[in-house]
Amino acid sequence: MQRRSFLRKAGIGLAGAGAAALSPAALAQAPEVKWRVATTWTKGLESIWTPFDNMLKRISEATGGKFQLQMFAAGEIVPAPGVIDAVKDGTVQAGYAAGYFYVGKDPTFAFDTALPFGMNTRQQTAWMYEGGGMQLLRDFFKEYNIYNIPCGNTTCQMGGWYRKEIKTVADLKGLKMRIPGLAGQVLQRLGVVPSMIPPPDVYTALEKGTIDATELATPAIDESANLNRVAKYYYYPSWWEGSAQVSLYVNMQQWNALPKAYQYLLEFACAECNIAFQTGQDAKNPPAMKRLVAAGTQLRPLSNGIMTACYKVAHELYDEIAAKNPKFKKVYEPWKKFRDEEVEWFSLAEAHFDNFMIAMARNEQRAAAKKKGT
Amino acid sequence: MQRRSFLRKAGIGLAGAGAAALSPAALAQAPEVKWRVATTWTKGLESIWTPFDNMLKRISEATGGKFQLQMFAAGEIVPAPGVIDAVKDGTVQAGYAAGYFYVGKDPTFAFDTALPFGMNTRQQTAWMYEGGGMQLLRDFFKEYNIYNIPCGNTTCQMGGWYRKEIKTVADLKGLKMRIPGLAGQVLQRLGVVPSMIPPPDVYTALEKGTIDATELATPAIDESANLNRVAKYYYYPSWWEGSAQVSLYVNMQQWNALPKAYQYLLEFACAECNIAFQTGQDAKNPPAMKRLVAAGTQLRPLSNGIMTACYKVAHELYDEIAAKNPKFKKVYEPWKKFRDEEVEWFSLAEAHFDNFMIAMARNEQRAAAKKKGT
Repeated sequence: MQRRSFLRKAGIGLAGAGAAALSPAALAQAPEVKWRVATTWTKGLESIWTPFDNMLKRISEATGGKFQLQMFAAGEIVPAPGVIDAVKDGTVQAGYAAGYFYVGKDPTFAFDTALPFGMNTRQQTAWMYEGGGMQLLRDFFKEYNIYNIPCGNTTCQMGGWYRKEIKTVADLKGLKMRIPGLAGQVLQRLGVVPSMIPPPDVYTALEKGTIDATELATPAIDESANLNRVAKYYYYPSWWEGSAQVSLYVNMQQWNALPKAYQYLLEFACAECNIAFQTGQDAKNPPAMKRLVAAGTQLRPLSNGIMTACYKVAHELYDEIAAKNPKFKKVYEPWKKFRDEEVEWFSLAEAHFDNFMIAMARNEQRAAAKKKGT
Repeated sequence: MQRRSFLRKAGIGLAGAGAAALSPAALAQAPEVKWRVATTWTKGLESIWTPFDNMLKRISEATGGKFQLQMFAAGEIVPAPGVIDAVKDGTVQAGYAAGYFYVGKDPTFAFDTALPFGMNTRQQTAWMYEGGGMQLLRDFFKEYNIYNIPCGNTTCQMGGWYRKEIKTVADLKGLKMRIPGLAGQVLQRLGVVPSMIPPPDVYTALEKGTIDATELATPAIDESANLNRVAKYYYYPSWWEGSAQVSLYVNMQQWNALPKAYQYLLEFACAECNIAFQTGQDAKNPPAMKRLVAAGTQLRPLSNGIMTACYKVAHELYDEIAAKNPKFKKVYEPWKKFRDEEVEWFSLAEAHFDNFMIAMARNEQRAAAKKKGT
């Protein structure tokens, strides 16, 4: 048993953990702590891998190598779908993943990442840190023997890659699309044939026409998948991922056994990782999008008709799930209230500022194009 | 001399600082570190005071009381305008402030907080952490003997309180407004008579009509100032504070003398504080705004005509400053390029997602109002 042998090696019991702190006296007796962190991703997904890996390096440096966490790619210890169970059972001390990969176990997992027509990045972070979300999800994850800490967000994603244009709800009928989870369920009700193809096989499936479309992530992440070569149209936004949080999932016994100083350090460091992940996306997306467009990708907004139909179906689905799943209902109701209040607030200063800056940029681009043309 | 006596008390010199780490051996010899942090704010500004104060408590807890930072309100050690000099000279080890308070020394300070028509919260954070902003500003602050660390953001502010409605640029002519810094300079060129009245005197000045309008901050911050009792109209957005970052300014010798473990800890903790500050605003603004509106405050968007005129003047002002201030120019040019690329990227998925959610919320409100009416 990995967990037991770790605890023996670490030489600390649950009883003593509360007293430990970063004081020299306490740390002199504190054990070296070495954790294995299983992830659902591969090293090739640089935008997801790097901010977390940097955090692990900085934790090691901050502790003079005393607290070491090593990340293992999907499949190295357990395959991606097994990460949550591996953390729960103590096969690994922690996991780095997105909760919504596990909606098959319980749709409540989605709140730790994203739901269709959920919150944008700022709103999700506000819900977690100041809106009661953290406590609701800590209660939920406790049943999986897990202590969850947010540590990143992809920001608002794109609506995926399509071989042909999609203009109306009628165009969704029969569309074969790789789209998992709750979004797949929403689209299925509107005629889409959703499927779950593993990421490495998506390129070939699109090329051969086994699927007509696929969702992925942001330009910074999507660029490396080269889907622009097999699908011309790149739609926005991903109404199913207005933001997508990723988390560190820590085995509860390991969390409780951690010296208090390391608990603080890990929470502080995850906050920095959260910023690093999100700002990495914000900084990398503009140049990635420019390269994609320069290589021929056609950008299209999803039509209001499609968005509105999906919005309606998504909320019907939530009501149905809430009616039969009390865990989901317990989180959904305060989540929806918080979301609605945030949207109303963001409609004032935030939206007006952002939309004005966008309008000015378009004016300047038009003026520059006109000048060039004359 | 505070700084010297601290260094003597701490018993650590610059030479040894690089080797220290959170290893038990190093920490056993590490000194207790006690810092005084001067701020530009008072304890009454709960939204600004609390997240930083919580961070200081958590740092103390993480180190078993070994690293203690104590915050002093404006005037307790030095008045608000003196904070930067007090840090520079080592009167205090650190300061908690907003850089743009010091544009009188050099307008380049504004980049560490906000410039009119600058970046929104996400964009500012991305510029700092991943867009080269941190290094540019570290170079700038080095000349003030300061190591700067971002630790909060007010998010997009409101456009201030007005005794009468302002609809066109002509309405700005002769308007007596409390508005400091670069925004005051922009509005002055459009006929406003800007003034700088200390916060405690603003209420009376508005009540007596000494001023017609004042800028302040967000509903969560403004509510405690009770300005709604003396000015009916609350405009949005603050085009001069699309976001406003606050920072920890550390005396460079103190930073260099800090054990490496504490340097990491402080940077990690400031990242968490950055999130706590911003999410505190996002969570508190919606209910604060509701209370203000319920008490009779009239919300108004600033007109496109006013916004566009200010946008033009602001950029003329930047060009003028850049032409004669090489430090400003060195930061302004890459800052503007980054801002423009961010605005273009945000015009796609982010803006479409946000604007769709706002449109749906308005539809639902209209439908609810109609139902109530029948």
